[in-house]
Amino acid sequence: MKFTVQRNLFINDLNSVLKAVSSRAQIPILSGIKLELTEAELIMTGSNADISIELSQPVSDDLRVESTGSIVVTAHLFSEIVRKLPGREFTFEVKEGNQIQITSDKADYVINGLDASAYPRLPEIAGTSFSLPSKTLRELITQTVFAVSTEESRPTLTGVNFSFKNGQIKAVATDSHRLSQRIVDIAAGPSEDLSLIIPGKNLQELAQIIGDADQDIKVYLGDSQIRFEFENLSFYTRLLEGVYPDVDRLLPTESTTSVQFTVSDFMQTLSRASLLTHANRTNAVQMTLNVADQTVLVSGNSPEVGKIEEEVGFSSLTGRDLTISFNPDYMAAALRASVTDSVIINFTESLRPFTVVPNDQSVEFVQLITPIRTF
Amino acid sequence: MKFTVQRNLFINDLNSVLKAVSSRAQIPILSGIKLELTEAELIMTGSNADISIELSQPVSDDLRVESTGSIVVTAHLFSEIVRKLPGREFTFEVKEGNQIQITSDKADYVINGLDASAYPRLPEIAGTSFSLPSKTLRELITQTVFAVSTEESRPTLTGVNFSFKNGQIKAVATDSHRLSQRIVDIAAGPSEDLSLIIPGKNLQELAQIIGDADQDIKVYLGDSQIRFEFENLSFYTRLLEGVYPDVDRLLPTESTTSVQFTVSDFMQTLSRASLLTHANRTNAVQMTLNVADQTVLVSGNSPEVGKIEEEVGFSSLTGRDLTISFNPDYMAAALRASVTDSVIINFTESLRPFTVVPNDQSVEFVQLITPIRTF
Repeated sequence: MKFTVQRNLFINDLNSVLKAVSSRAQIPILSGIKLELTEAELIMTGSNADISIELSQPVSDDLRVESTGSIVVTAHLFSEIVRKLPGREFTFEVKEGNQIQITSDKADYVINGLDASAYPRLPEIAGTSFSLPSKTLRELITQTVFAVSTEESRPTLTGVNFSFKNGQIKAVATDSHRLSQRIVDIAAGPSEDLSLIIPGKNLQELAQIIGDADQDIKVYLGDSQIRFEFENLSFYTRLLEGVYPDVDRLLPTESTTSVQFTVSDFMQTLSRASLLTHANRTNAVQMTLNVADQTVLVSGNSPEVGKIEEEVGFSSLTGRDLTISFNPDYMAAALRASVTDSVIINFTESLRPFTVVPNDQSVEFVQLITPIRTF
Repeated sequence: MKFTVQRNLFINDLNSVLKAVSSRAQIPILSGIKLELTEAELIMTGSNADISIELSQPVSDDLRVESTGSIVVTAHLFSEIVRKLPGREFTFEVKEGNQIQITSDKADYVINGLDASAYPRLPEIAGTSFSLPSKTLRELITQTVFAVSTEESRPTLTGVNFSFKNGQIKAVATDSHRLSQRIVDIAAGPSEDLSLIIPGKNLQELAQIIGDADQDIKVYLGDSQIRFEFENLSFYTRLLEGVYPDVDRLLPTESTTSVQFTVSDFMQTLSRASLLTHANRTNAVQMTLNVADQTVLVSGNSPEVGKIEEEVGFSSLTGRDLTISFNPDYMAAALRASVTDSVIINFTESLRPFTVVPNDQSVEFVQLITPIRTF
């Protein structure tokens, strides 16, 4: 196995594959990256227990093949070496006994490789396939994934539930204290109804890899795995087993108090109040909505540290007076995910969950937050 | 005590004082910042066991005094609050029972303060005083401080030794494996000869605070403390007791092999070699200087990981052939401190310390590195 490659091109590919490699891999060979070279392409694979990334670079003037083969290299050391090589190009050659020679200008490395036959095979996924615009997928992820549970006691809640039905995707995440649900129309989804649960932290990696790309992503669905394919990259993640709870019945259909805030102003008020509430065991700010006076007061209190009171500006306030307490971090996360500059918060009672929705009825995005009992 | 201040001005001052406040202060009141307000100025003080910083802000249109007094505020919380306040200004008022009210626009905080009388007094330093240009002091620090020892077994070696004599300052640091010595002329030093040792990590803080400032720093020397004063800031550090070893006799006066390198090229070669040598218990690269062939070969070897060999470019190589091993991190630190683009390395024997000096005889800067025995 021997090839010469343009170093920057190779580093870009390597960076993508490294996202799947854990620095403390439980299976030793998974701390490596597999390189497979054919006459047509170089395929790099990185994997951990949860996700795998496979990337193919076609042979070109920037990637010249002298002889084919395959090898596994220690991911961390190899990437450090490639980054520090002096030349614009480098040559990679597998010698006797899985020894790898890497040469660039006057630098000449020989490092130990591992037999590629010991590297686990990626699952073959031959089920349903369909396409999604990359921007849609990324938005669905970032608008819901923050609300997944981090507790393993209810594994299904550590993932985001995607349901495909009637030309729409519904993405839902909840940790049972708050919930985020986003629905978007798609032009070409799967041909049948589908519901699947993907681990939240794997989706965060996927969203990062998608970045600002604007193209179609092909989705291949297997029994316990799903594969996302775009450009020359395939991203594999396992699916979570189990049935996702029916959350539709949790969403209130009416409200008795409504207030409309500018997202950025309300965020800043919350960040000031939470400076004090974070010092408490129960992280709660109190909001007092007075309809007759047309005032909204946010307060935070910590017996050891001090207190804050602040009148918040708003665009409209209607309905009944209300005093309610909630976790400012949940509210801040909901606001950060907002797709509009202002949001409407709809309340019923002090101890009933309330919703945060965009100030735009055409956007199907609802966040539900459970209040905190402070008395 | 009550004042109103322009927030950005206050944040700048606060940031400087915070450098002296430890987040895990051993004496509880030292996790605070003392504010003292007179009709003329606001004085802020932060301190830990090692250093203290005192900063004075004169009363102005941007700092208006309503009533004088003093208080101690929790440093971390207070700085977070001030950073997040909504207005351009804020008002700070001490109420009954050391309660502090902070108001800015519609935000109104009340936090707990501590009695200022419990805050330790800074030492009064009435000894020798003299001036130093800030750039000179900063250079002396950054060119030597990396070589101080981190081992407390020989406390004097954890500091940099400054000696003032014959219109010169000599700064020396050594951890007994390597040494850095810089000598500069000064126009107006202390009137008598002086030798003092200042803890290395305190000097690093001082160098950071000096930053790119270009002005005279007044130095006040006490028995066990020293104070550096510039602009509206005073920086106090303790001095290390003891007599600094006489290092002059360690510096070789002759050499049998000399090589001249471009700093940046040689740094890169070392960083590539150390990728492998860092995997070893003994971190050593080998350098082979062949005068007849006019080649310099650097190699690094790790039984578990692999090896590297690289021919390094150089500007001149004279004297006897030599093979020598040394710690690449010591060499890299010496090169980073270089004030010239190229350096000359002067060797005698494989097991004798060698020097790294600037390629400019007018600069009195010498670094000494002890080789490693690898056979």
